[in-house]
Amino acid sequence: MKRVITFGEIMLRLAPEGYGRFVQARSYGASYGGGEANVAVSLASFGVDAAFVTKLPGHEIGQAAINALREFGVDTSLIVRGGERVGIYFLEKGASQRPSKVIYDRARSAIAEAECSDFDWPGIFKNAGWFHFTGITPALSDKAAAICLEACEAARAGGLGVSCDLNYRKNLWSKEKAGEVMGRLMRYVDLCIANEEDLGDVFGVTAPGSDITGGVISREGYAEAAKLLAGRFGLKQTAITLRESISASDNNWAAMLFDGKDCFFSKKYPVHIVDRVGGGDSFGAALIYGTLRGMDARERLEFAAAASCLKHSIEGDFNLVSLEEVEKLARGDGSGRVQR
Amino acid sequence: MKRVITFGEIMLRLAPEGYGRFVQARSYGASYGGGEANVAVSLASFGVDAAFVTKLPGHEIGQAAINALREFGVDTSLIVRGGERVGIYFLEKGASQRPSKVIYDRARSAIAEAECSDFDWPGIFKNAGWFHFTGITPALSDKAAAICLEACEAARAGGLGVSCDLNYRKNLWSKEKAGEVMGRLMRYVDLCIANEEDLGDVFGVTAPGSDITGGVISREGYAEAAKLLAGRFGLKQTAITLRESISASDNNWAAMLFDGKDCFFSKKYPVHIVDRVGGGDSFGAALIYGTLRGMDARERLEFAAAASCLKHSIEGDFNLVSLEEVEKLARGDGSGRVQR
Amino acid sequence: MKRVITFGEIMLRLAPEGYGRFVQARSYGASYGGGEANVAVSLASFGVDAAFVTKLPGHEIGQAAINALREFGVDTSLIVRGGERVGIYFLEKGASQRPSKVIYDRARSAIAEAECSDFDWPGIFKNAGWFHFTGITPALSDKAAAICLEACEAARAGGLGVSCDLNYRKNLWSKEKAGEVMGRLMRYVDLCIANEEDLGDVFGVTAPGSDITGGVISREGYAEAAKLLAGRFGLKQTAITLRESISASDNNWAAMLFDGKDCFFSKKYPVHIVDRVGGGDSFGAALIYGTLRGMDARERLEFAAAASCLKHSIEGDFNLVSLEEVEKLARGDGSGRVQR
Amino acid sequence: MKRVITFGEIMLRLAPEGYGRFVQARSYGASYGGGEANVAVSLASFGVDAAFVTKLPGHEIGQAAINALREFGVDTSLIVRGGERVGIYFLEKGASQRPSKVIYDRARSAIAEAECSDFDWPGIFKNAGWFHFTGITPALSDKAAAICLEACEAARAGGLGVSCDLNYRKNLWSKEKAGEVMGRLMRYVDLCIANEEDLGDVFGVTAPGSDITGGVISREGYAEAAKLLAGRFGLKQTAITLRESISASDNNWAAMLFDGKDCFFSKKYPVHIVDRVGGGDSFGAALIYGTLRGMDARERLEFAAAASCLKHSIEGDFNLVSLEEVEKLARGDGSGRVQR
Amino acid sequence: MKRVITFGEIMLRLAPEGYGRFVQARSYGASYGGGEANVAVSLASFGVDAAFVTKLPGHEIGQAAINALREFGVDTSLIVRGGERVGIYFLEKGASQRPSKVIYDRARSAIAEAECSDFDWPGIFKNAGWFHFTGITPALSDKAAAICLEACEAARAGGLGVSCDLNYRKNLWSKEKAGEVMGRLMRYVDLCIANEEDLGDVFGVTAPGSDITGGVISREGYAEAAKLLAGRFGLKQTAITLRESISASDNNWAAMLFDGKDCFFSKKYPVHIVDRVGGGDSFGAALIYGTLRGMDARERLEFAAAASCLKHSIEGDFNLVSLEEVEKLARGDGSGRVQR
Amino acid sequence: MKRVITFGEIMLRLAPEGYGRFVQARSYGASYGGGEANVAVSLASFGVDAAFVTKLPGHEIGQAAINALREFGVDTSLIVRGGERVGIYFLEKGASQRPSKVIYDRARSAIAEAECSDFDWPGIFKNAGWFHFTGITPALSDKAAAICLEACEAARAGGLGVSCDLNYRKNLWSKEKAGEVMGRLMRYVDLCIANEEDLGDVFGVTAPGSDITGGVISREGYAEAAKLLAGRFGLKQTAITLRESISASDNNWAAMLFDGKDCFFSKKYPVHIVDRVGGGDSFGAALIYGTLRGMDARERLEFAAAASCLKHSIEGDFNLVSLEEVEKLARGDGSGRVQR
Repeated sequence: MKRVITFGEIMLRLAPEGYGRFVQARSYGASYGGGEANVAVSLASFGVDAAFVTKLPGHEIGQAAINALREFGVDTSLIVRGGERVGIYFLEKGASQRPSKVIYDRARSAIAEAECSDFDWPGIFKNAGWFHFTGITPALSDKAAAICLEACEAARAGGLGVSCDLNYRKNLWSKEKAGEVMGRLMRYVDLCIANEEDLGDVFGVTAPGSDITGGVISREGYAEAAKLLAGRFGLKQTAITLRESISASDNNWAAMLFDGKDCFFSKKYPVHIVDRVGGGDSFGAALIYGTLRGMDARERLEFAAAASCLKHSIEGDFNLVSLEEVEKLARGDGSGRVQR
Repeated sequence: MKRVITFGEIMLRLAPEGYGRFVQARSYGASYGGGEANVAVSLASFGVDAAFVTKLPGHEIGQAAINALREFGVDTSLIVRGGERVGIYFLEKGASQRPSKVIYDRARSAIAEAECSDFDWPGIFKNAGWFHFTGITPALSDKAAAICLEACEAARAGGLGVSCDLNYRKNLWSKEKAGEVMGRLMRYVDLCIANEEDLGDVFGVTAPGSDITGGVISREGYAEAAKLLAGRFGLKQTAITLRESISASDNNWAAMLFDGKDCFFSKKYPVHIVDRVGGGDSFGAALIYGTLRGMDARERLEFAAAASCLKHSIEGDFNLVSLEEVEKLARGDGSGRVQR
Repeated sequence: MKRVITFGEIMLRLAPEGYGRFVQARSYGASYGGGEANVAVSLASFGVDAAFVTKLPGHEIGQAAINALREFGVDTSLIVRGGERVGIYFLEKGASQRPSKVIYDRARSAIAEAECSDFDWPGIFKNAGWFHFTGITPALSDKAAAICLEACEAARAGGLGVSCDLNYRKNLWSKEKAGEVMGRLMRYVDLCIANEEDLGDVFGVTAPGSDITGGVISREGYAEAAKLLAGRFGLKQTAITLRESISASDNNWAAMLFDGKDCFFSKKYPVHIVDRVGGGDSFGAALIYGTLRGMDARERLEFAAAASCLKHSIEGDFNLVSLEEVEKLARGDGSGRVQR
Repeated sequence: MKRVITFGEIMLRLAPEGYGRFVQARSYGASYGGGEANVAVSLASFGVDAAFVTKLPGHEIGQAAINALREFGVDTSLIVRGGERVGIYFLEKGASQRPSKVIYDRARSAIAEAECSDFDWPGIFKNAGWFHFTGITPALSDKAAAICLEACEAARAGGLGVSCDLNYRKNLWSKEKAGEVMGRLMRYVDLCIANEEDLGDVFGVTAPGSDITGGVISREGYAEAAKLLAGRFGLKQTAITLRESISASDNNWAAMLFDGKDCFFSKKYPVHIVDRVGGGDSFGAALIYGTLRGMDARERLEFAAAASCLKHSIEGDFNLVSLEEVEKLARGDGSGRVQR
Repeated sequence: MKRVITFGEIMLRLAPEGYGRFVQARSYGASYGGGEANVAVSLASFGVDAAFVTKLPGHEIGQAAINALREFGVDTSLIVRGGERVGIYFLEKGASQRPSKVIYDRARSAIAEAECSDFDWPGIFKNAGWFHFTGITPALSDKAAAICLEACEAARAGGLGVSCDLNYRKNLWSKEKAGEVMGRLMRYVDLCIANEEDLGDVFGVTAPGSDITGGVISREGYAEAAKLLAGRFGLKQTAITLRESISASDNNWAAMLFDGKDCFFSKKYPVHIVDRVGGGDSFGAALIYGTLRGMDARERLEFAAAASCLKHSIEGDFNLVSLEEVEKLARGDGSGRVQR
Repeated sequence: MKRVITFGEIMLRLAPEGYGRFVQARSYGASYGGGEANVAVSLASFGVDAAFVTKLPGHEIGQAAINALREFGVDTSLIVRGGERVGIYFLEKGASQRPSKVIYDRARSAIAEAECSDFDWPGIFKNAGWFHFTGITPALSDKAAAICLEACEAARAGGLGVSCDLNYRKNLWSKEKAGEVMGRLMRYVDLCIANEEDLGDVFGVTAPGSDITGGVISREGYAEAAKLLAGRFGLKQTAITLRESISASDNNWAAMLFDGKDCFFSKKYPVHIVDRVGGGDSFGAALIYGTLRGMDARERLEFAAAASCLKHSIEGDFNLVSLEEVEKLARGDGSGRVQR
């Protein structure tokens, strides 16, 4: 299967144990994660040759981030070392009516301060067949956005498929700026992934009939939105994850895929949440995998929905599941009976 | 806003980790809590100037109890040091059909052995506008009941509003004694808080049509009971929390408020329980807050119901939530979507 | 009440904390368990004089297994010391759509390598009134099967009641071999316990109308299967546990009992799972207890269903509940209200 | 070997993890211990039939104390259930110049409130050959002292050997009261164990030339003191443990034994302390063991010194070492080389 | 006693458990600390009215820093809320020949970005008698240095005593810049505290005859250096801590004080290290305390040396010891015998 | 630098936390290690291209072992998947006079059951310059010994340097068998590493004048032994680690190297032990590194002694230190001063 390159930021994730609040924390569970890094780990778990590209400081916290990726089989040899700090995000896990809370402390991380000259994209893309990034990376800084653009151009030049998860982050940039920058990058994108809020935030495309906080989702509305987006940017695939948030403990999870012709909706999974961070990333990774393996549209949508359903049961950003586990769920066994 | 004084016992709470049983415990999570202390912490979290009054030994366990209160902004300068021991309660968290279990080891704590002369109530109440206690404190010992009475008299003399949470504890005293002592104290009370069992246990007032263990709650029955109680003691506000216990893991939670004229019922919250101890205290505190801030009856009931709903998602006795978090839920967003 | 002897393997159970996956584990919770050991602990918790018979190495890991049994009141004085290793099983707790996973590392444990000469059954059964084993033990090795047969013969000779939990383990032996060996042993059995899959796996007896993975259970089908089995082996009691697996987090749990005349179905419990390992063992133990105490068929079925319902809320293999707790639930209070 | 009965209190021990101070503790390690219970565990670890006698409440904390003893092979069948509470002690581990600190919360424990009628000493001593208690038990309450006296009388009547560890606790009673009560009990004692401070505190017998805080120990002084005590009470054996406290992290540890004729001094061990609580108890237990096994005076002294040296390396009150481990050290191998 | 104001940064301290390395960390112990905050906590622990002044973000990590101070009695009401981030430092505890390692991630913290207008020094100093800062604060940014200067001027105007701990941090500024800025601030200082390296780094004043890495300390050299410094800046007191680093596990610790007339050297403590961070701060705090209480020079030096000796035995930045504990050690009892 | 291949077993290491004994363990820290795997990790940490060759089961425990190696940069692409189990060793950390204890449960692991056909040595050695194994691998089984021999032959054929650490394990084979098998393999070895016991155990070569348990080491004796060994097998380098075991907490550590001409003794390090497992492996790895980098004999000996000194301060089997850290200590700075 083709080699995949993902590019973005990997952060130190600090989360109080269990359902502890920030003000109760006497220790933080430490792991690493970030949209594109999570995608790389998912792909490596499925057996794909996946490399993650970023810039990380030379000190031990930077090294620990690299080790976390290596541990799960991601190629880290393309990572540039330098800069001052590793971005951090603090995560407080919600329960019942209390939402999870994220405090970002990622400004001026090594990758946000990186220069175009740090990355030789034609070299990076040698032997690679796919490139993935998210809307977080160009939001980090103007320099990061410029690097993204260079990467997209090199990807096109190199004949790679390109995927992008919109992933709008309101504390990184305004909707206006996001729309402008992402609009430019989308011209290079084959597969666009978004969640139920991103489309509106970034491109002003809303799904009529849906009320996100109220948990109402309109299938027709999303189908329309996907078609509109696909038309605007010439996308080959447009996928939207559909989360119905009943509470911080229980969600319904599904997704839709528009392949330029038809609109498919996956099975809907009622999930009892262990950790929902990285749910969208695990969906995107599985969709890339399905695309690379040549699954048909319905099959790759169900594969991606099953993979990301499982993510909700796993601690940390990374979706540490095997191909077999995803396939078993996609085939329909969600009974959770003990495997001996 | 007015300064609030709460008076009672703060105990060392020892709870096995997770769902471990007492006989499995190799370590105990250690925190501090008690009805009136919990109320003080809630009020301080909302920005109220709240002081907690008690007696605690001079040793480090007593100091740790004080530190736990200071940590969350409670004024502890009125606490008397002396006596032999800090009361303890052991808490085993239940799940599904297995109930939570409490073993009290609070006899002869410093506050249970305290003397009337330990507390100068007129001095304590200087600059204060509200006094809160619960039915636990007078149950600790005859001396503690006498101190409560002195406090109530001084509160009335000082023009403070007075609230009391009935909180009947059957292992501290008999229903007869409770009824007698509490009956005397209720004459000073403006706001009475009770749960669905207290009214019957302490004052023989039952809500016809309800079956507590079976999880059936009759709204009319509780309204009637509240009015009866309000009439008997001349209460300005009578509030009852309404818990439908589906299992140790899942409860429905709501409350009603009778303001002397009308009876209001709050929204009902289906809660997935993290820790339900202190649920009633968090309700009482929020009701005091709403009263002090001049919310109207419906608003302060919904505020209090939302605050105490959130408590069920937080480890420990203390309801460590902010004003904003309560207001957001009271306004209706209980979807638990990640806050970034 | 009669003394009970159980015989089998006790393993070191190594489980990542919380919902951690094997590949995430930096530490393993260590406890001990195994079908027949779990039954012995349950019986001792109910006050029965229960002894567990096995073979364990002389080293500290073997000693720790013994200590775990002693801790909960099981007589370990009949345990033979010797052999090389304690069997191990790794347990990863599932959640939502992700199933729990067990990796066995039990081959060549001390008990699997034991000889018939290690056990003096007539001596072991002195003063005892009941003997229990499961289908796991004869599956460990041909020698273990031979020891089981000797035990059964001695039990019959000594006039003991005999119970057996089928407990088919596909990675220990084939269905054919299981059917053949278990068929021979069943001739000595008075009380047979099985789950919804065992009957088919071991004896080819299926419950028409049920779809286990799909969570559909046909009461009539199971009644028919139980009668068939009882007839084939002359069983006095045949009990089947009925698990509807909604997800790894939520199950419905019930059981049926055929006493040779009538078929009874217990109440069905919706359980929110803390740890479901040992659910069947706790059911069997409670059924033995009910039989020894002379409960009538419906009563002992409800007692056993309640006991095993509670097991799902307790960490570890052992059902650490008291008689009172089981009786309270069997009487109908499953509301999980705090016990103070 | 003869059966040994020990009698006293077993407490819940609550210790912050590592070197945490009480005011830093968010959790407490929970274990159980007490002078005579520790002796029983040591003896059981050496293979002796040892029973511990006490009174413990019927609730789960009482049960957990029993389980802790059963776990390590102590016979708990003679323990009386009843009373209100389990005594507690809080332990903060010291380091370097900061001393360990103990806060007792043991007043009105079940055993301190027990009645003479709770214990049938002739029945308890059936088949037993040795009785052990410490100076802590009669200090708990006048009733406890009366029970001790009854036990001593019954022991003498039954022909049991009797040992007593003076173990003076200044917060339980005055030196005067201790001297008076212990003086009466000592008439029944064959083997008296004391540390370098007890002799002076209880009986006013000092070792000239020693300065305990300064870490100076005079061998001649202690020999003289032992002889004096032996003479006064007609003791067969008098043993004194000799601790040179360099800091909370490092001690020198040795002991002396006067057998009525000669005074022996053990090897001196420089110990790097893991947990020094129970050091004296482990010494006493090993001396009883050596006496029961018929070791000569020097041999049993070295055995006891080695056993108690090892205790300092083990977390908790209990000296969880095997006979082989003690004998290996007593023979001279203290190099700590890895045992594979 | 006079009210003391300290000003500087408080950071989130993230340390792997035990002796774990950064690259091994799956969780970080989370506490808070910083030179001037540590001094405030020490003073509050001694009963002094101590307030800490800084700027902290409005989010929960900022709140947790405040709570950590409140917990130990520090007045936090003067803290300004605002800015983006809380400074962080990662701490890896060394052992034996492996040194402890600190990675700072403090750039652009709220206090480093604060403006002069954030602080109203005359108001802050109302009712206060002493002001303390360290050389870290002016090193944070030019703005922070300007705020320091304003504070010093206001302190002089208000008649407060002023102390400064040089605390040179080479990754914050150059020696040249430090010398220049600190030289200006020192004109306001009454009591200067330094360690064995600071004098040379900041002011080029070296102690002839000492070799810091080699662990050689020349008493005469330090006396000379202290006198030189005192002369240059007109200091009333000059104190130097003297650390002989044998290894990361064992240090010798002592201090000297020049009171303008005589030079005193404290007792030298061999310390077995639990946590050495904050050693110098605890020394400074105790010296301020001794000064405020009017101890004579030798007495306050020994008090400060004892206090800081104890710090090495306590986890975290804060020296959580009581007045009594320090006085006991200063009087000479460093034997570490258990306190019951 | 040349690529290095190491071959052997990697085990799951299960160790109670802190100084807990096996019988106290409620959880086990889980890591992975084994002689040759440890060497590979050390080399990768120094920047060498190092691959570890073994056979591991396809299940998640096998995968976790691979991940542990990948995490620290070891090439695991040559590892064969298959077989039944991962070898396990239980490790109890000793303290003071109590030795560390290892219980092996490694029989019939995947590598012990591997076949010669599992490994294509010429392919494995492509592009490699060095091969390392230890005396543990051929001791696992006759098949493993045969594979070792094939590897050695292929290494010679491929012109690789070969190193072997004798590492005698008495519970794997007899001294006679070890001598015979290792004698055959030593003919291929360039660099032999041994500890103070191995030489005598495997080859009957003793260092006159040394008493290992007593902690006496004779430099001349070891020099003589090294020369004798070098002569017998034609070794280019012979290295012996010299451990003086004062206690389980404190050791002296040094090493010697005979380069065929001269005998060098390293500096002696007094180490305060955090974890001494893997000390010899870290020495061997550093010696290989020094050899590959062309250090002179004295330099590479001091480098290796410093590296392995640091290992004693690090938890787990792996010596997670950087080149810079080793070089700093080798240059003489062992003062353990904080690195900021």
